[in-house]
Formats: sequence, C-alpha cells, structure tokens
Amino acid sequence: MYRYKIIFAYDGSDFAGFQVQPHQRTVEKTLKIAVNKIAKNPDPAIEVYGSGRTDAGVHALGQVAHFDIPFDLPDDSMRRALNSLLPLDMMVKSAEHVDANFHARYSAHRKLYRYRVSQGEFVDPFKRRYTAHYKYPLDIERMQIAVKDLIGEHDFTSLVASGSQTKSNVRIIYHAQIWRDEHDQEIIFEFEGNGFLYNQVRIMVSLLLEIGNDQRPVNDIPRVLAARDRNQARGTAPASGLYLVEVNYDD
Amino acid sequence: MYRYKIIFAYDGSDFAGFQVQPHQRTVEKTLKIAVNKIAKNPDPAIEVYGSGRTDAGVHALGQVAHFDIPFDLPDDSMRRALNSLLPLDMMVKSAEHVDANFHARYSAHRKLYRYRVSQGEFVDPFKRRYTAHYKYPLDIERMQIAVKDLIGEHDFTSLVASGSQTKSNVRIIYHAQIWRDEHDQEIIFEFEGNGFLYNQVRIMVSLLLEIGNDQRPVNDIPRVLAARDRNQARGTAPASGLYLVEVNYDD
Repeated sequence: MYRYKIIFAYDGSDFAGFQVQPHQRTVEKTLKIAVNKIAKNPDPAIEVYGSGRTDAGVHALGQVAHFDIPFDLPDDSMRRALNSLLPLDMMVKSAEHVDANFHARYSAHRKLYRYRVSQGEFVDPFKRRYTAHYKYPLDIERMQIAVKDLIGEHDFTSLVASGSQTKSNVRIIYHAQIWRDEHDQEIIFEFEGNGFLYNQVRIMVSLLLEIGNDQRPVNDIPRVLAARDRNQARGTAPASGLYLVEVNYDD
Repeated sequence: MYRYKIIFAYDGSDFAGFQVQPHQRTVEKTLKIAVNKIAKNPDPAIEVYGSGRTDAGVHALGQVAHFDIPFDLPDDSMRRALNSLLPLDMMVKSAEHVDANFHARYSAHRKLYRYRVSQGEFVDPFKRRYTAHYKYPLDIERMQIAVKDLIGEHDFTSLVASGSQTKSNVRIIYHAQIWRDEHDQEIIFEFEGNGFLYNQVRIMVSLLLEIGNDQRPVNDIPRVLAARDRNQARGTAPASGLYLVEVNYDD
C-alpha cells in the first residue's frame, strides 16, 4: 500500500460537517468517494483520515488527510486526479507520499485557526457565508489585551462545548492575535495551538466579542478559565467565520 | 403616492435572474415581496422597477430600483425596513425619496460593470460563485491594448446574444480598462457605457480572453465590430464573474 498526505481547502457552507454521516453531504464522504474512484472502488473501500473534524459551515484553507491506495501514483498526478473528481467547493492543494507511520490526526503537532468577523448594521450579501456578522460596537484594543490571557497552557474546560468527551481539557495556545484587515474591512482572530477542544475556537471568539463590546471586564478570561465551568462562557460564535488554516506536522 | 429610489446589492448565485418568473426565486420578486409587506400587501400589489435585468448568477453591488408606496416613510427607515425583510443574499444600501418622474430604467444615463477572472489550474472553492475561472495563460497587456477598441460609439450587433430584440444596437462605451488585482490575485475588467445589450459584457470579456490567450490577433475587435455578425464572437463568459457596480442618473 502507498500512503498519501493531502492538503486541501473547502468552502464549508454546503457541507454537513466533516465526518461521514448517512444521507448527508460531508467533507470526509466526498473525499472518500473521489479516493475510491481513483483506486477503482476496491472492496473493502479505502478509508480517509482527517486531521480532525470541522463542523457544518466551517471552512478549511489547509485541512490535512491521509489514505492508503494499492498502487503508486506520482504526487502531482494524485493531486490532479482528485481535483478532477471533487466538486468545485473542495480543492486539493498538494498530495505527497508519506511514510506508513504518518497519521493525519495523531501526527499533528499544531493547528492554526482564523476567524473572520464583519461589522455593519446589516450583513454584506457577499460575506454571509464567509464571515460572522457582528453588528454591535467593538473595541479592538480591549480584545487585543484580553486575548493574551488565552496564550499558554490552560485547562479549557470552561471553553468547551457540552458533550465533548476528551480525557483532558488541557491544551496549549502558542499564539493568539487579533487585527483589523483594512482591505476586507474585517476583524481577524488567529489562534495557534497544539489542539483545540470541541467548539473551543468559536467559544473563545464569542467571549472576546463580549469583552470587545464591553459586556465583560477586559481581564475576565483568567477568572473564566479558573472556574472550569462551562456556564462561564455562554456563547458560541457562528461556524461561517471559522477557517482551519494550517495543520503542522513538524517536530 | 411616494416614490422611492433604492440602491441595492445581491449575490446573484441563488437567484434565477432578475425578472419575476413563476415558481422561480428572482431578484425582482424577492424585492417586490418585501416592498409589499412594508405597504401591508395592498391590492393591486405594488410593482418594483429595476434599472435593467441581470441574468441568473450575475451579481450586483449597486443595482437600482424604484417603486411607489401610499405613505411617507423616512429614507433610512425605508432602508432598514427592507433589510429586515429581505433574505441575507440581498441588501439595500440606500433608499431615498425621488420625484415622480424618476424612473430606474428610463432615467439611467450610465452603467458601470466589472468582471472578475480568477486563474490557476483548478477553481478556488471560495471564488467559484464570485469569479469566472480561466485556466489558460493570459497576456494582460494584449487585452489592455485590445480593450481600447471597444471604447466609443459602436454598433455592437456582433456582440449581442441572439434573441435580443432591441431597435438599435448602437451604444457608447465611455471607458473600459483591465487590471490585475494583486490582493485578490484576479484580473478585473471594467466597462462604463450608456447601456449594454443582452449578454454584451460577457461576450466582450470572452472576446478579450481569446485575445489574451492568443487565439485572436490583438487588433481583431474593429474587424469583429465592423462585421455586424453575431457569429464573429463565439463565446459568452460565465455569469459568476459579472457585477453591476453602479447605475448613474446624473445628466
């Protein structure tokens, strides 16, 4: 068998999330169908393994997956073959042979997420699928101060969606920053960490927006984290603003 | 009756064009439903008049329409009332009272269209609805030279879709230019004229792309125009790249 790592992008708007589900158009299922077509639909079917799930409506610029196929194909032929089989809302950026002990999920060391917020009284029709719309005033400087409290190793129990069943909620955030993109007139949130809990990025953004809108004190995050209580952070920012930008496998 | 002029934007992807059609989601029908709701659904229903039609998939940043309602509403209240009733892929940018002899279509003096082309071997998932994808090489300078031949007053019979029934195919193009947008990595075509024939902009872009790809001589446009023959320009560029940017009513 030959193992391939692919880096791929998708517009999450029309996918019911990542994981295969019956009667639903998901990222994993769409990719799996293309991979199996290339391998001439072997039985049993070839499985694809993503670096992690993304929810319905969440986008990816650099999602990673791996799979094994029973014959050797040059990297660029694999990339082109997949792209010619995939629908237009999904695109493989690169394909490469990897060692049999590479695993898209377990070998991942860091993930980079970005979150795009558009402002204004009403939603820009061209941004409704690609940003979260926030119509209330935001003080970016307050959010820029507050976001520093998320950096480092923390128990993120207060910032995980209920229903998550991870053994430990301790994760490291290596960097986190917020800036205004003048060209696109948006506010961008960026987080890089060794892994994120279910809905964690969207809950962190919601918390920061509440701080930016003066609904919480600027120094509220240490208190929220220390409480280890899911009721401390009430909101979850919409899926449409979230992008998985990069998954890093370097040591 | 009070006449309002509105300027509005829409993502054309999910509309079956502009004009009311049975069982179809169109721009005009969507707007008409909102206007009639504001006027409490009078009988007969209020009509809305656009500056002109846009085809299925064509976008607008500054489309214009007018309508009459039987009571007076402040301009900004009208804008906000419409936006709260319209779906998210449509947004009213401004509403203002106008004189009863203003007509969105007949009073229009100039229209500005832009066309966005993305390149690359495969379609970027985030651009598939908002640009036309062209995967062959393009020489922008050749197109920049050729586009000058479209400026001025011409009989555009060679560049109109068959089926158009206008009395005269003579129109004026005031300016036309092509540039590379480095930020978005796209090629932008821009045309301002006193009016455009059915599919004219998309046929002009297709012709220019053929010149940019060396399928036609750079000085082919005067010959095509002089022929007054619809078979001279074969292609029509996709709707997804086209934007109605502005309709100008100044004298």
